[in-house]
Amino acid sequence: MSQTHLNSSMLQQLNHTIQEYVSEWLKTQQLGFNNKALSSSSTVNKLSSTTLIFTLALGFCLYKWFFASSQLSAKKATKFSLPIPDAAQKHWKGKRLFPTSVQNEEDPHRIQCYCPATGQFLGSFLSMTDQHIDSLVSKATKAQLKWRNTSLEERTRVLLSLQEYILENQDSIARIACRDSGKTMLDASMGEILVTLEKLQWIIKHGAAALKTSKRPGPTNFFMKFYKGAEVRYEPLGVVGALVSWNYPFHNLLGPIIAAIFTGNAMVIKCSEQVVWSSEFFISMCKKCLEACGHDPDLIQLCYCFPPSATDNTANYYTSHPGINHLTFIGSKPVAHHVLAAASKSLTPVVVELGGKDAFIVLDSVKDLHALSSIIMRGTFQSSGQNCIGIERVIVSQKNYDELVSILNERVGQLRLGSDIDNLEDVDMGAMISDNRFDELEKMIQGAVAQGARLLQGGKRYNHPNYPQGHYFQPTLLVDVTGEMDIAQNEVFGPVLTVMKAEDTMDCIRVANSAPFGLGGSIFGNDYEECNYVANHLNTGNVAINDFATFYVCQLPFGGINGSGYGKFGGEEGLTGLCNAKSVCYDKLPFISTQIPKPLDYPIKSNSKAWQFVKSFNTGAYTLSTWQRIKSLLSLAKNAN
Amino acid sequence: MSQTHLNSSMLQQLNHTIQEYVSEWLKTQQLGFNNKALSSSSTVNKLSSTTLIFTLALGFCLYKWFFASSQLSAKKATKFSLPIPDAAQKHWKGKRLFPTSVQNEEDPHRIQCYCPATGQFLGSFLSMTDQHIDSLVSKATKAQLKWRNTSLEERTRVLLSLQEYILENQDSIARIACRDSGKTMLDASMGEILVTLEKLQWIIKHGAAALKTSKRPGPTNFFMKFYKGAEVRYEPLGVVGALVSWNYPFHNLLGPIIAAIFTGNAMVIKCSEQVVWSSEFFISMCKKCLEACGHDPDLIQLCYCFPPSATDNTANYYTSHPGINHLTFIGSKPVAHHVLAAASKSLTPVVVELGGKDAFIVLDSVKDLHALSSIIMRGTFQSSGQNCIGIERVIVSQKNYDELVSILNERVGQLRLGSDIDNLEDVDMGAMISDNRFDELEKMIQGAVAQGARLLQGGKRYNHPNYPQGHYFQPTLLVDVTGEMDIAQNEVFGPVLTVMKAEDTMDCIRVANSAPFGLGGSIFGNDYEECNYVANHLNTGNVAINDFATFYVCQLPFGGINGSGYGKFGGEEGLTGLCNAKSVCYDKLPFISTQIPKPLDYPIKSNSKAWQFVKSFNTGAYTLSTWQRIKSLLSLAKNAN
Repeated sequence: MSQTHLNSSMLQQLNHTIQEYVSEWLKTQQLGFNNKALSSSSTVNKLSSTTLIFTLALGFCLYKWFFASSQLSAKKATKFSLPIPDAAQKHWKGKRLFPTSVQNEEDPHRIQCYCPATGQFLGSFLSMTDQHIDSLVSKATKAQLKWRNTSLEERTRVLLSLQEYILENQDSIARIACRDSGKTMLDASMGEILVTLEKLQWIIKHGAAALKTSKRPGPTNFFMKFYKGAEVRYEPLGVVGALVSWNYPFHNLLGPIIAAIFTGNAMVIKCSEQVVWSSEFFISMCKKCLEACGHDPDLIQLCYCFPPSATDNTANYYTSHPGINHLTFIGSKPVAHHVLAAASKSLTPVVVELGGKDAFIVLDSVKDLHALSSIIMRGTFQSSGQNCIGIERVIVSQKNYDELVSILNERVGQLRLGSDIDNLEDVDMGAMISDNRFDELEKMIQGAVAQGARLLQGGKRYNHPNYPQGHYFQPTLLVDVTGEMDIAQNEVFGPVLTVMKAEDTMDCIRVANSAPFGLGGSIFGNDYEECNYVANHLNTGNVAINDFATFYVCQLPFGGINGSGYGKFGGEEGLTGLCNAKSVCYDKLPFISTQIPKPLDYPIKSNSKAWQFVKSFNTGAYTLSTWQRIKSLLSLAKNAN
Repeated sequence: MSQTHLNSSMLQQLNHTIQEYVSEWLKTQQLGFNNKALSSSSTVNKLSSTTLIFTLALGFCLYKWFFASSQLSAKKATKFSLPIPDAAQKHWKGKRLFPTSVQNEEDPHRIQCYCPATGQFLGSFLSMTDQHIDSLVSKATKAQLKWRNTSLEERTRVLLSLQEYILENQDSIARIACRDSGKTMLDASMGEILVTLEKLQWIIKHGAAALKTSKRPGPTNFFMKFYKGAEVRYEPLGVVGALVSWNYPFHNLLGPIIAAIFTGNAMVIKCSEQVVWSSEFFISMCKKCLEACGHDPDLIQLCYCFPPSATDNTANYYTSHPGINHLTFIGSKPVAHHVLAAASKSLTPVVVELGGKDAFIVLDSVKDLHALSSIIMRGTFQSSGQNCIGIERVIVSQKNYDELVSILNERVGQLRLGSDIDNLEDVDMGAMISDNRFDELEKMIQGAVAQGARLLQGGKRYNHPNYPQGHYFQPTLLVDVTGEMDIAQNEVFGPVLTVMKAEDTMDCIRVANSAPFGLGGSIFGNDYEECNYVANHLNTGNVAINDFATFYVCQLPFGGINGSGYGKFGGEEGLTGLCNAKSVCYDKLPFISTQIPKPLDYPIKSNSKAWQFVKSFNTGAYTLSTWQRIKSLLSLAKNAN
């Protein structure tokens, strides 16, 4: 891909041209304005002034679109490269593994990686031990001592370089993520690459503002408020950690690393045992990037091991490691209990991002049901539904229910399963990470049917003729689902489109809030006030109005409540949360500082006088009555010696 | 206490008088200015213009001092009263308990309360059961459903009423806190009342700004940034809880309640079994206040029980109650592990405020050692050193070491132990909450002496002749303490002034950072740059420069790192932390909303075209190169159908 950067003289020339053009135009428009003053009813002139405003606005937008980020950052990125694994090529001929399992009984200490879409073997990795983890933490700790002193400009340069690398290597990165997770290239382009690029660019543009020292109001009492300054300063925590899930092997791994790098921390990140192969590559990419920018690649460390068992406690050793100062956990509720119990030993703070049961609410005022159904399809079936903010429940206010169900029924029926990693075929949905939840999914669906739900499409695992070792589940449409069914209360995390009927807007809210999760939700309607009312009444941490999952893309602080965990990553809070937010109080005026008043100085001359002194001080400082204040100041003076 | 509120006509008249006065003065000063233009070297005129500026500034300050808060809030507070217990009177004749213990073997389910300064019995309370706690949570949940819809003005009115009650009842409140904790009235006036009033007034003045919807930058990519709005809205969490320590029975209890009330939450608060008697009164006060303002007093609930044991798991039942959505824990490290393990079962987020080993750093540039020693004395011996941000280590750069030690030696030697609750005598230091840590304290002190520290004062428990059942410990001065001694690594939480010598400023930082805590710290010096450098290098959550503990009074977000816990209460973060910070993304422009582009609409027509489409989108959105952007837009257009 060829690269032509703008240099500053080109930019200047362009700027000049635009200015000339605009000023010429302004002159002609001015004529129009002058004419208008003479003949006030001329529609031609009205049009020309509207055109002027519109053109200026458009010109400004175009200018911002095209040049804003180039001016900011062109030429600041450092180029780097690293070897791309064979499996990242199209038409790679990897041997298929049978049976497919991350653990091989003959070599139980190694983690086996394979492609869930085809069963192709990718590599095996020795599960780490406590000693490995000590060594990772110690290397990261050392590297951070230098890194913490880098400027935000230096850190930004690393992120810019990473951004450029990702942009130029979209094909390889997507294919690596697909091989390890079984998803389609299209799913990777949006779920892995787009969101990661947005996170990078957001931090590059807005990160510095988030970490700026935050001035605070200081004390309110009139004895202190004029001379005490108060502020919060954001300092790196040291080494931070993250336990990330397998559903987005690229994005879930990169997200915490990007935030850690920018905040001056080192990162020891634990990937899922399902995606060690791709994580190894992505970590190498980060290390290479640091190195190319002149920094210690030890700043980023990858940890992997099997889940805790009777004979292997390594995962808990990581989670309760005293050298790790903060943890971000992205995973499931059952695992969260273990992680939190382990972290409680080392008093490590944890941001807990669990699953959700996100509602997609369709109000009566919605207009274009077909356009809406496209969003529902994408939100449900992207990454085969393995998406913490995937649509788990479509809640439809009754007016549109039947029509929407009929549209969805037609569309779900057209979905094709398979792999597009090697561009062999056109498919809609890839594989799931493993087949170990297929029984549970089938049972949930059958249970719902037994309780009155209608299964219109799918509902079962799928044996793909081309990929007999692949983990495929049929795209499923289940309608007439009600709140008491298991499938309405538990996270499916699979390709199951669940539709529930509500009586009206208030009932939509009631149904949405009836599940024990609180991650995200979407509301669609043509009346913004009504949508906003619903947004304010959903018991969730995130809401998108007339869109799906944009709160995540937007880099708003992301996190759930109730069964979906707590704490936030992403956005400003995601950055400040990785910092020691140090509260500092100081004297604003050089000639005033605090002295202990005589009546309070040890040894206390008179306890009763000292009491009267502070009592008067309190009244003087906090009374609502002016006369009380004056009286208390007199009493203060009386007791001051 | 008589009350004379300013009415608006009085205010107007006063305003008028001040205006007249200032305008008269301005006229005379104007003459001076005019003369000055003629004779530029006249010192008399220079003086008069300085006087003018100074007088105006002073006038403004006086005006703000005297009238600002009256204008804001006069007459908005609701008056209320409640019966004051007999023991809150001076010269109360309560019978002494012997032996003094919170548990009576003959009646093991009741908590016995007594005054640690005198041993006087205050009352006994049935330790709560799981059923009690269920009932508290259920009442609070019900009350919150109404409370969450109150306006900030209504909540402010409750806080104002509380503020007025506290101001008018300082004597009773202090005496109740003293009876239950054994501290002196002076300690209560500052540590209990002043800080609570500041918290109330800070929230009344600045709380609304903290809870205002926070607009965020939104996405950065140019396809979305012009039409997507992003904001964070702060909503109540529901029922929140707090486990608070006994050292400030009034302030520690009121702090979380004030924050919960203002944020629209209900509070089920668990007090220490050491201070149930006073907590009962303070909770009644809050309930009365709510009632007087027309709200449901069930919003605030008090929980008390014995610590968890083999036969009693009630405390953990509270901590892991699914009806409590957030916990603030103020206590010790060993208890924190239990609290966090229990909270991990219910996935309840916890703010963890543990002890500290706060350093008080004296740099060479310090000027007035006597004034400084007064602050050290107050910071060490207030509440007999039972203060999480009490001075645990005075670290002195060598120049001032010997002189400061000699001043402190003289002053600590003058301290008198006893009780001033009944105004019988002039004393400096009260009792400690119990005698169960006396062995440990004596051992720590003896251990330090064995390792080379010099014990200059105290060092042992003290049998008070007037109060043989009281829990007194001698004011202790231990100098030449070094980092490897137990007393330099563990929190003392008692009346022990520990002095350590450092070589220079850098060594002060090293010594300060050598303990496994990270709560607060103070730095004293005459060179602000140097002080600030030290502030930026302390591994703590809070720092005061040239003052003691002001970061706490100031309502900066308060919390530690490392062994001192995590999370913040106080200030803005203390309020938003009790909220569901809901991230909401919406369309800013009424005529633009997101549509799924054709190539990405299920069923996918061509996977390769879809991939090219998103790839071009990513490049167009995130490239640093303008020509790449133009190329990618063309490609996007090409693949759009």
